[in-house]
Amino acid sequence: MALSATRPIAITMGDPAGVGAEVIVKAAAELSAADREQLVVVGSAETLERAIATTGVKLRLSGETTGGDILRLDHVDVPGMPLPFGKLDSVGGEASYRFIARAVDLAQSGAVAGIVTAPINKEALNLAGHHYDGHTGMLAHLTGSRASFMLLASEKLKVIHVSTHVSLRDAIGRATPERILETIRTGHAHLKRMGYANPRIAVAGINPHCGENGLFGREDDLQVAPAVKMAQAEGIDVAGPISADTLYYRAYSGDFDLVVAQYHDQGHIPIKLVAFDTAVNVSLGLPIDRTSVDHGTAFDLAGTGKAKHVNMLAAIAYARKLAANQDIAK
Amino acid sequence: MALSATRPIAITMGDPAGVGAEVIVKAAAELSAADREQLVVVGSAETLERAIATTGVKLRLSGETTGGDILRLDHVDVPGMPLPFGKLDSVGGEASYRFIARAVDLAQSGAVAGIVTAPINKEALNLAGHHYDGHTGMLAHLTGSRASFMLLASEKLKVIHVSTHVSLRDAIGRATPERILETIRTGHAHLKRMGYANPRIAVAGINPHCGENGLFGREDDLQVAPAVKMAQAEGIDVAGPISADTLYYRAYSGDFDLVVAQYHDQGHIPIKLVAFDTAVNVSLGLPIDRTSVDHGTAFDLAGTGKAKHVNMLAAIAYARKLAANQDIAK
Repeated sequence: MALSATRPIAITMGDPAGVGAEVIVKAAAELSAADREQLVVVGSAETLERAIATTGVKLRLSGETTGGDILRLDHVDVPGMPLPFGKLDSVGGEASYRFIARAVDLAQSGAVAGIVTAPINKEALNLAGHHYDGHTGMLAHLTGSRASFMLLASEKLKVIHVSTHVSLRDAIGRATPERILETIRTGHAHLKRMGYANPRIAVAGINPHCGENGLFGREDDLQVAPAVKMAQAEGIDVAGPISADTLYYRAYSGDFDLVVAQYHDQGHIPIKLVAFDTAVNVSLGLPIDRTSVDHGTAFDLAGTGKAKHVNMLAAIAYARKLAANQDIAK
Repeated sequence: MALSATRPIAITMGDPAGVGAEVIVKAAAELSAADREQLVVVGSAETLERAIATTGVKLRLSGETTGGDILRLDHVDVPGMPLPFGKLDSVGGEASYRFIARAVDLAQSGAVAGIVTAPINKEALNLAGHHYDGHTGMLAHLTGSRASFMLLASEKLKVIHVSTHVSLRDAIGRATPERILETIRTGHAHLKRMGYANPRIAVAGINPHCGENGLFGREDDLQVAPAVKMAQAEGIDVAGPISADTLYYRAYSGDFDLVVAQYHDQGHIPIKLVAFDTAVNVSLGLPIDRTSVDHGTAFDLAGTGKAKHVNMLAAIAYARKLAANQDIAK
């Protein structure tokens, strides 16, 4: 298929009761007209109109004749909408689901180059009968994927996770050599695509000081070290296991391009500390490209216009860079 | 006992093959004569003399007649000394042990107000037949203490650990309500002593998002939450469990004075990221005061004079502040 570099990015509106619509219109209003044309919001017209009014941005949705600059909308009807801001409701969960399902269709048909997602509420999603752990599980299911990986990307620190939303105890067990190797490979391929000629990867240890030669825990010797050796044998520039307490500082200081985190908090704590507002959540291992903001629905802020949109801007920028590299690669 | 505010602080020299002697003399040389008089180094004359020569600081050890300003020394003889810099050796382990044992004697007799420790090498310690996991276990044993707690203190982020040098799997089990409650109490008492009228404490979760209502792990509900409730019932200003991914950022931003970390890396990763060179390691729960640098022996740097001493200066300053508050309190 001949792909044009001008295919747009779809942005899902997220839970209509959350801050998604607001951060989307605030971010869109800051883009140039040419850049904004590269976006299509998959969401609800009423909710976006309300967000435009709340935030005071000069935008009009496609199809409307009055207002400011055009923001393209792919409106998805959901019974029970519109929903008040801040309300946990199954209607919001159903809407969240439909926006994402529609965006996945657009991406799989090639109509859009990738997806940026605004936050959803897992409880609302489950109330609507969609029993996923959030975006990741839903996207994997909708695209028929076996496994996916969460990468958090900031300018000076990038982290890919061996596991995410499982208990810490389960995470230790899930960090098998096979899964760790697959995480290394996935991170490596992603950085190559993003322009790193020879990505320098480091794998964090599971136990303090990597267990200090088995004094406290053998997981680093038995689960992590073999994976690193296998990846090295494939020609990947990867080191580890490295004691997690100093590794994130070293990576942040420039020693490595990517850290493989062994569990959710190990990767999230340092990223949130150094890039609270700017880290982009990137899903890898799916047949479609997807980035996301790394914040929640913030029901308490929804409707005030106060939610920051810097993270949404970063997620859009990352998705566009991915799209550009995708088209080049093909 | 009437205590004088002029009791000195003992500084143990650490492994003679490491950077301890160098960072001690560099730090001591930067202090005023009056401040330096408040210190006594427990170590080896030969090694300290060599460190003075290597670093080029203008100091002479007490008892010597030539050289610069006086640095008080409590010399401890160890067979086989001096030891070359950078050599892992049982002699270094034996010396490390004797310096610490001597300093503990001084502290328990009241001759010194507290101890600052330079780094030791656990392998050397074990080669010498002293089977401890490091300073913490040794100090607990030498002082007959039941339990101790590691606090890492930097200006904007302070963390106390429920456990430290145990495997991650064991750490989850050791985070009992009793141990967590004792950690909260210990941290609270320490901050009160350091001048916080009403310390604001937050307890980190064990599982990602604190298990999200049991979806991935019940430890936060069954182990952490009860401890927080008990501490609150005692009048302590404590919140939790709070999702660890955002808590450290919040504490760093000023929301809390102290974070209770559930395991070694959870507390160490954020501290090393924001205060790599300056965080002071403080042992709590012992009958004596002890602070430490938070770096290792750095055998590869030993003898070059290049090791940074900013962390040693911070450890000395913290110990002196503790000593001042100790004397006031008594």
